[in-house]
Amino acid sequence: MSTKAPLPPAGTRDFLPDAVRRRRHVTGIIARCFERHGYEPLETPAMERLEVLLGKYGEEGDKLLFKVLHRGEKLKKVLENPPVSESDLTELGLRYDLTVPLARVAANYPEQLTRIFKRYQIQPVWRADRPAKGRFREFFQCDVDILGSPEILAELDIFCAIGEIMDELGLSDFELHLNHRRWLSSFLRALDIPVQQHVAVLGVLDKMDKVGSDAVLSELQEKNLSTACRDHLPEWFACFAAKRPQPRDFMSRVDADGQAALNDIARVLDWDGPRGGRIVWNPLLARGLDYYTGLIYELRIPPAPSSFGGGGRYDNLIGMFSGRPMPAVGFSFGLERLLDLLEERGALPAAAGHAQALAIVLDAAVASWAMDIVSGLRARGISVDLYPEISGAVKALKWADRKQVRWALFFGPDEQERQQVSWKDLSTGATGQSAPGDLASLFS
Amino acid sequence: MSTKAPLPPAGTRDFLPDAVRRRRHVTGIIARCFERHGYEPLETPAMERLEVLLGKYGEEGDKLLFKVLHRGEKLKKVLENPPVSESDLTELGLRYDLTVPLARVAANYPEQLTRIFKRYQIQPVWRADRPAKGRFREFFQCDVDILGSPEILAELDIFCAIGEIMDELGLSDFELHLNHRRWLSSFLRALDIPVQQHVAVLGVLDKMDKVGSDAVLSELQEKNLSTACRDHLPEWFACFAAKRPQPRDFMSRVDADGQAALNDIARVLDWDGPRGGRIVWNPLLARGLDYYTGLIYELRIPPAPSSFGGGGRYDNLIGMFSGRPMPAVGFSFGLERLLDLLEERGALPAAAGHAQALAIVLDAAVASWAMDIVSGLRARGISVDLYPEISGAVKALKWADRKQVRWALFFGPDEQERQQVSWKDLSTGATGQSAPGDLASLFS
Repeated sequence: MSTKAPLPPAGTRDFLPDAVRRRRHVTGIIARCFERHGYEPLETPAMERLEVLLGKYGEEGDKLLFKVLHRGEKLKKVLENPPVSESDLTELGLRYDLTVPLARVAANYPEQLTRIFKRYQIQPVWRADRPAKGRFREFFQCDVDILGSPEILAELDIFCAIGEIMDELGLSDFELHLNHRRWLSSFLRALDIPVQQHVAVLGVLDKMDKVGSDAVLSELQEKNLSTACRDHLPEWFACFAAKRPQPRDFMSRVDADGQAALNDIARVLDWDGPRGGRIVWNPLLARGLDYYTGLIYELRIPPAPSSFGGGGRYDNLIGMFSGRPMPAVGFSFGLERLLDLLEERGALPAAAGHAQALAIVLDAAVASWAMDIVSGLRARGISVDLYPEISGAVKALKWADRKQVRWALFFGPDEQERQQVSWKDLSTGATGQSAPGDLASLFS
Repeated sequence: MSTKAPLPPAGTRDFLPDAVRRRRHVTGIIARCFERHGYEPLETPAMERLEVLLGKYGEEGDKLLFKVLHRGEKLKKVLENPPVSESDLTELGLRYDLTVPLARVAANYPEQLTRIFKRYQIQPVWRADRPAKGRFREFFQCDVDILGSPEILAELDIFCAIGEIMDELGLSDFELHLNHRRWLSSFLRALDIPVQQHVAVLGVLDKMDKVGSDAVLSELQEKNLSTACRDHLPEWFACFAAKRPQPRDFMSRVDADGQAALNDIARVLDWDGPRGGRIVWNPLLARGLDYYTGLIYELRIPPAPSSFGGGGRYDNLIGMFSGRPMPAVGFSFGLERLLDLLEERGALPAAAGHAQALAIVLDAAVASWAMDIVSGLRARGISVDLYPEISGAVKALKWADRKQVRWALFFGPDEQERQQVSWKDLSTGATGQSAPGDLASLFS
């Protein structure tokens, strides 16, 4: 037999126990916070019908879908009748994000869901991206969304949860970069940039934090913008470069729609100021996805310009299956990046989840006695691992060390006769004996 | 736009909030118990290489695998060069169970895992079975296994956890039916049944609890057994039909290998007796999978003969990728069936996870004040939902009712001016006002 075992597929990972614990530490904080705020959990299947998935993520997204092959007779028939095309072979694909399934759910269960629906969802998604450092083909999304409210109170509700989660993770130095899709459009109109160029220009502006204004300006030169526009851009950029640019200072420079957007931004900043001032206006933040319609935001940990999550208002997406327009606002944590950062900072609890004690049975004859005592300890909330072999202490203690257990409890015939359990504190080396009824006090 | 939204794929389910909560209640009890016993969590990817999956679940299992289609250039090339065969189109499949991935993990990470590895894993698996009541194409498995120990102490360790979990679920009336693969073989040898007929005969015997001995005997008639064998079977069956047949009573009737197996069974019963006697010997229990090598067991809730989980010792499977033999013992809960039963019995906590209070903001001007008070309550561990619209109370109260929230808190300009939050106890209709600092006492 070969000893070369196949690895998990490229871009996917096994999570060994400590990795699972680290991930659960973070997702647990996120989920508990959302629950505390009245967000409700939703879970959807890994597979979706292709009609649900196709055309929702752009041409590039369609290419990155994992599709599921037909089976049995259906497949046989297709293969026997060439030419075979891709669409003959499949009708299901793996979930690509958690937003499209949410839109489907909103359409499928109008009676069961509340009119306003606050939900969170933490599940894996699959994308056939080229695997790279920090980029996986199976990764978890942690999404929170409010459907049904057109009001800014919905955004504030989500910002409130984001702040609590970051504080609880020990990442209180975060900033939430805020902007508004309609401000951006209005700004581009003020520059006389034709509508058909907006997407391309926004794509360039969005890189400001990463490449700086000189690089952005020179890339914009290639876009064939008007001379007037190019002349004005450096001045705008200079205004934006203030430490904390204030939206109200730009009111006179944009049209009514832009002013309304600036007002929304200002309202959020006014609300956030007394709460710590961790929301900052980033006038050129564009976010990649073009389905946003209002406020948009991105989670940063200064000084890095990279994103640890993001979201925005998207009032035209959730209705795509139901045909009923439905305002929506959402946010998605970048779980893998948060984990990497917490790891770098040593901010993850190292020992979480390890048992407090290891029970070592030295003789089969006392197994029953030992397990009764161990059950009693567990009933009192003490986690006790049992070494599942009758063995000398050496192997078991080595195991205890690997599993980071502090206390070893020894159960042998002598112990049973004297009704005294031998123990060792592996952190100090101290040893002793306790009556079964007194053992629990070791852990208090 | 059509209002007919596509549903989730056949055999898969969306879990709306209350369903997620019910499932988490059960999986939480299972996971916490395993953690308390020192079992470590493992998670593996949804997709596996087909070479890992194929040939592990029998011919029928291979047919039920969901396979993932090649993409891009690779697929194009295949389709352009007919004839196209299934194996040209795919190299990945969806996880079919949690045991084969465990075997792969054991082979992949010999250095990182402990020599004895106690792990649990709660993840979905996918099988292209024909969907039916209670049978799904995506369903969760809850597996617990101990790798590396050949000793019966490993089985006892697992039985101990099963008992605690069932008690905590409120299903203390369970029975664990116990048997031994080597006893069964020995019994069939004692009946002079040729080895090549063992699997077929075991398949018939396994139905005893469901169809009764007459049906089993008549089905065995067709198997061409020797007359001597057929003459003796009714006598054996009569012995087995005792309320609690004792393995030691059958010692003289089987060979040494069968005696060793009976001894194992007796040891487990001796251990379990003083702990409640919920393990019973079921001398004809065979369990479907033929990879078991020792003790086998099935979780029952009398009087139904159906299984709520099962497992056994399988010493020849885990080594299949590593080439190193590795003893193993495991158990898998039938989560969907447990959930159905708990639902039937009304034994699931109805209100778990709902927020304690709903904050209703009556005017945008007081949103900031309201949210500060709400944050203060949450910091004290009280879950407070916020209705994310500025609205009159009527809509919000209807929502509170749907979300099963008990307390409504009203924040309006009057309330802010007097620094008195209005509240209503929706369970009694009582109303009142409290200073922000006193609100928490409502929930104590």
